[in-house]
Parts: sequence; structure tokens; C-alpha cells
Amino acid sequence: MQLKEIGEFGLIDRIKNIVDTSSTELLVGIGDDAAAFRSSKDHLTLVTTDVLIEGVHFDFDYFTFQQLGWRALAVNLSDIAAMGGRAKYAVFSLGLPEKIQVESIEEFYRGVKELGDKFQTAVIGGDTTQSPDRLFISVTVVGEVEKEKLTLRSGAQVGDAVFVTGTLGGAQAGLQILKSAMNKFPPRGGIKGGVSSTADLKRGVLIDKHLTPQPRINEARFLVENFPIHAMIDISDGLASEINHICQQSGVGVLLRAGDIPIDSATREAAAFFKERPLNYALRGGEDFELLFTASEEVANELQKKFREKFGFECVRIGTIKAPQDGVTLKTLDGKFIPILAKGYDHFGTE
Amino acid sequence: MQLKEIGEFGLIDRIKNIVDTSSTELLVGIGDDAAAFRSSKDHLTLVTTDVLIEGVHFDFDYFTFQQLGWRALAVNLSDIAAMGGRAKYAVFSLGLPEKIQVESIEEFYRGVKELGDKFQTAVIGGDTTQSPDRLFISVTVVGEVEKEKLTLRSGAQVGDAVFVTGTLGGAQAGLQILKSAMNKFPPRGGIKGGVSSTADLKRGVLIDKHLTPQPRINEARFLVENFPIHAMIDISDGLASEINHICQQSGVGVLLRAGDIPIDSATREAAAFFKERPLNYALRGGEDFELLFTASEEVANELQKKFREKFGFECVRIGTIKAPQDGVTLKTLDGKFIPILAKGYDHFGTE
Repeated sequence: MQLKEIGEFGLIDRIKNIVDTSSTELLVGIGDDAAAFRSSKDHLTLVTTDVLIEGVHFDFDYFTFQQLGWRALAVNLSDIAAMGGRAKYAVFSLGLPEKIQVESIEEFYRGVKELGDKFQTAVIGGDTTQSPDRLFISVTVVGEVEKEKLTLRSGAQVGDAVFVTGTLGGAQAGLQILKSAMNKFPPRGGIKGGVSSTADLKRGVLIDKHLTPQPRINEARFLVENFPIHAMIDISDGLASEINHICQQSGVGVLLRAGDIPIDSATREAAAFFKERPLNYALRGGEDFELLFTASEEVANELQKKFREKFGFECVRIGTIKAPQDGVTLKTLDGKFIPILAKGYDHFGTE
Repeated sequence: MQLKEIGEFGLIDRIKNIVDTSSTELLVGIGDDAAAFRSSKDHLTLVTTDVLIEGVHFDFDYFTFQQLGWRALAVNLSDIAAMGGRAKYAVFSLGLPEKIQVESIEEFYRGVKELGDKFQTAVIGGDTTQSPDRLFISVTVVGEVEKEKLTLRSGAQVGDAVFVTGTLGGAQAGLQILKSAMNKFPPRGGIKGGVSSTADLKRGVLIDKHLTPQPRINEARFLVENFPIHAMIDISDGLASEINHICQQSGVGVLLRAGDIPIDSATREAAAFFKERPLNYALRGGEDFELLFTASEEVANELQKKFREKFGFECVRIGTIKAPQDGVTLKTLDGKFIPILAKGYDHFGTE
């Protein structure tokens, strides 16, 4: 059987069936943003891992090694954030092509260190080996969370308000700018020669969103420390895919309002330029690494207010958790109700 | 600067300089078989990671997917054993070529599960993604060890007896048989058409040593629970490389006796057939995943006796820890004293 016949999530289900183990210490195995097991009376240890492969997940036409180091750690910190935890330790496995320069690897680790220092995450080990064709990066991050603050995908309750932090679609817009710029400018030359400095600034913001995403660890900790958050996930594969994960694992439906999904002006301008729909960037683009979460209706206003005061940006309410029979639904700008298909980025899918 | 100019261990030193962090919770960072940090009052959490890349570390001409799954977990369990710990959890990151069959991946995880069940190690997560050219496997294992049983490379003391479990060189002999057989037999056809059934049996043992190594977790636990083990490492890169790690990190020298290095008759026969020196298999071959450790002279006899009674095979005394000025030395069979150069398998070395 070909992988594309069952897709990434079909494969994960099959792996789960083979290896699944139950244990009193293991609270969360395969299927959430990170695994969680009991490490002391009140604390859980979190473990998450992510692979980045040259030519699949990144390209040196637009990544510097330092940005790549940052990003490789960031995508894992984002998974720890989505569990409500703190990231403590990281191990890096690198498959290195023969032609790579020692200085480039050092630059990579300076990017890792820069982000790690922001969140007190230390690199404590790894494995480096030769890779014949391309750079492989595998990062595993170990974190911790207080037992009562662990936040899973499966906790959403009917009537919950649904939120996202920040804005969506920007990372995808940034990637499209980077890819189009590659045809116009020399590699690594940066995005110059723009129409105006304002336009350049906006493009820079989008590009940074793709190259050096900001993991929402502090935001997640603030949320779980101050409010009863029912379910949480990070947006790595696009809002459409992630909201389906929450609904499926919580056994609920949802109604999202297209008009409330936060998309910034830079992303809208980029979408106009590339003749794309900005909503598609948000729903299908992925890699924004914002948090998608649910909490009781009653705390919604207070939560938004406190979040804004603390971080200086919004956490936007985009919909409501519904009964399962209501499906996973989007109310479009012109008032139609359409199903949200879980087609984010599937690494093996055919779409 | 090219990688081969500084080698794998030179690179690790440079990475350490960039990322090194000190923390009261972190007991062991980069540079031992696994990292160790405090997770509760009496226990430490261990973390280790290893990469296997198709065409570098394994080849489907002689590995089945099930054997590969076993091996990918085994090399990590061996690192946990070398710290004196138990392996608890594993996460697997796979870069999968498009042509790979779903059934092959399932077979891989059955191999993982088979070994994991032997040591109560559960697969709790991972990441699967597309890889353009070849299969890429990265495994991280989380284990635990009681604080007082943690055994590092750096604890060897002058006068200690030096031991290895089992026999050395067999994995390298097995690999050479597999590679030579590839030219005679169809891929995956097994090693048939041998001279005699005894010869076939011996070859089978060597081949299994390479394909499905036995991590020495139970042996390591027995040792740290019953004897004061001063230093320990697993033999993944060959005895020459590993004894140099112990001496360097402990600040000591060593005298090993060539005549006492345990090499079984199957390995000797294979060496004779391939016109290799069996001692070279043991010193430079690597991948035996036996334990190399030191303990006080006084407990040596008792330790060997109890080990034999418990496991039915030997743990052999191969030398004595000396003062640093005595160097890292081998007494050859004809009574010469020669330095043991640290040339095991260096992934970027030029040798």
C-alpha cells in the first residue's frame, strides 16, 4: 500500500495500533502535540519531536543557518506550549552533507542558542552523522507541566469559545514572497528593491514569520495559569486541520466565523499581490505556530482583556464549540455555512 | 573549514562551546552516552538520541524493516544502559521516501515493539515526514536512573580493573559477511549455501550481532545495583575509541592486554576467511554494543563470578586503569607496548 493512500494521519493510526502501550505513568501517548508522563507527584514530563529535511521543510535559497537553528527549536517549543508546559531541554540529531562548513553548523547552533536562551531551554545532547544528499535535522524537546495545567486537544466542551493568538496566514504569505523573490534576486540577498519602505517592512514581517517563528510558550503559560483552558493545539498545519483535530479528539463540533479569523493587513496585501484568498492562507497555509484553544464562554471577555494587557496583542475569538452533529463548520463572509475539511498540510497526501 | 579537518569529536566540542549551559538540575550535558537531569529528589531522567541514515548506517540489501526497527531502538537502549539506567520511553522521527510501502513501516514498528517489550520501553510519539532520497531514522529515548547509580565515563580511578561484557568484533565480522554475501546471493536471500551447518550457524550468530544487537540494560542494572562501578560506556565505535573516551574524561591512563580481549571463535574464523586481524575487528569495528566499565580491583573476582552465574556468559577483565602519564596502551600478544589510538568509527574522519 502506498503512503499517499492513507496519508500522514492514517499512518499514525497504524503505528499507534502496533506500538500502543498503556501504563499508569503514561498520561498521553501518540496523538497530541507532545507525550506526557508522570515524573513526580505533581509534575509531568513532556516529550515532543520534529524533523526538518532540506528541500522538504526548508531551502538554503532563503534560510540562513542561524534562522534554521532558531526554527528547528521553535517548532518543538510550540508543541510544548500547546500542552501548557515549559520547555527545559533539547537534543539535536543532524545528518550533515559532506560539503557543509563547520562555520555553518556553528551558525546553526547560535540560532538555537538565541531562541533557547529566551525560554531557558538548554541543548543537552545530540548525534551528528554524515548524510549523503541533504541536511536532516531532528529535534526532541523535553518539557514539564504541572499535572493540573496539562492541556490536551481532547478537552473542548460544547458551548466553549474558540480563540487564536495573534494572526494567521502570515507565515504562508512570507513563504510565497521568499519563493517568488528567489526568481528575482540572488540567493540570500534578502528582499530588496520593493515599491516603498512600508511595503518592504510588511514583507519583512511576513518573511520573519516564516523563517523565525515565535513559539507561544509565555502566552500559553499565562493562559493555563490564569484561566481554565479546556483544549489547546498549536497551528502548524493550518487552522482547518487543527480545528478538526480538536473536534475529533474532543468528540464535538464547531462553528467558526470567517469574518473573525484574524488576518493582518500585510498578509492581505500579499494575498492580493499573489491573487490568493487570504482566508486560504489562514485555513490551509500552516506554520503560523499560533495557539488555537477553547475556554468557557463566561471567561471569554476577561481572558481577552487580560491577554491584551499582558502581551500587547490580541487573542481573538473566532467561534463556538457545538454538538458533534453540527459538524466542523465555517460561516462564510456572505453568510453561507460550509464544512471545514481537514486539509491542512499532509506530508504524504495527494491533494 | 571542512568537517573532516576536525572530525566528529572536534565538531561536538565546538557545539558544546556554543550551547553549553550550566544549571543545578542538569547533571550531565553533551559528552556522555546520555544527558542526565534531576527529575525528582532521588531520580534522574536520562535522554539520548541516535540517527540512522539509509546507505550510511544500514542498507536494505541486508536489513529487513523489522530488524531495522529493532536496531534503531537497540542502539539507544545501549546508551541508557551505559549510564546505569532503565529505558522508559522512545520517540521516533522518520523521513520516509515516497516509494516506501505502508506495510514496511508497520514491519519496522513491529521490530521496535518486539525489543521495546523486552525492556518495558514504550513508543510514546514521533514525527513522520517525506524524505526525497532515502530513509532517515532518528530515535530519542528517555530513561531514568537512581541518583547514586548514575555511571559516567569520567569516574575511572587509577588501579581499577577494566572489563567488557560478552565478546567483541562479532558485529563487524557479521557486517563483512553480509556485504560479501550481497555479491553472491540475491538481496534478503539470507546467507545460504555455506560450507557446513556449523559454519552457517556461526555466521548466523555474527550476522545477528550486526542486525539485531542486544542492548545490555539488564547486565548494566545488575552491575550498578550490586557493585560500585566507577565508569561505564557502551562500545558503539570500537574498543579503541571507547577506552580513549573513558581515559580522557576520567583523566587517567590504561593498560589493556591484547590477549585478554574476548573474541569468539566465529569472529576469528570470519577474520581468517577475510584475511583480517580479529583484534582489529574488536578495536576498530564497533557496533558490538557491549559494556566497557571499570571497578575496584578488590571486587573484580566477585563481580565476574556473580555476573557469570546471573547471565551465563562472561564479563572479561581486559586491563587496568593507570596514571595519566602511562598513556592509553595495549600490551600486544608478543609483549610489545603500543599506544591505542582513538580511531574508531568517526563519521567525518578521513582515515
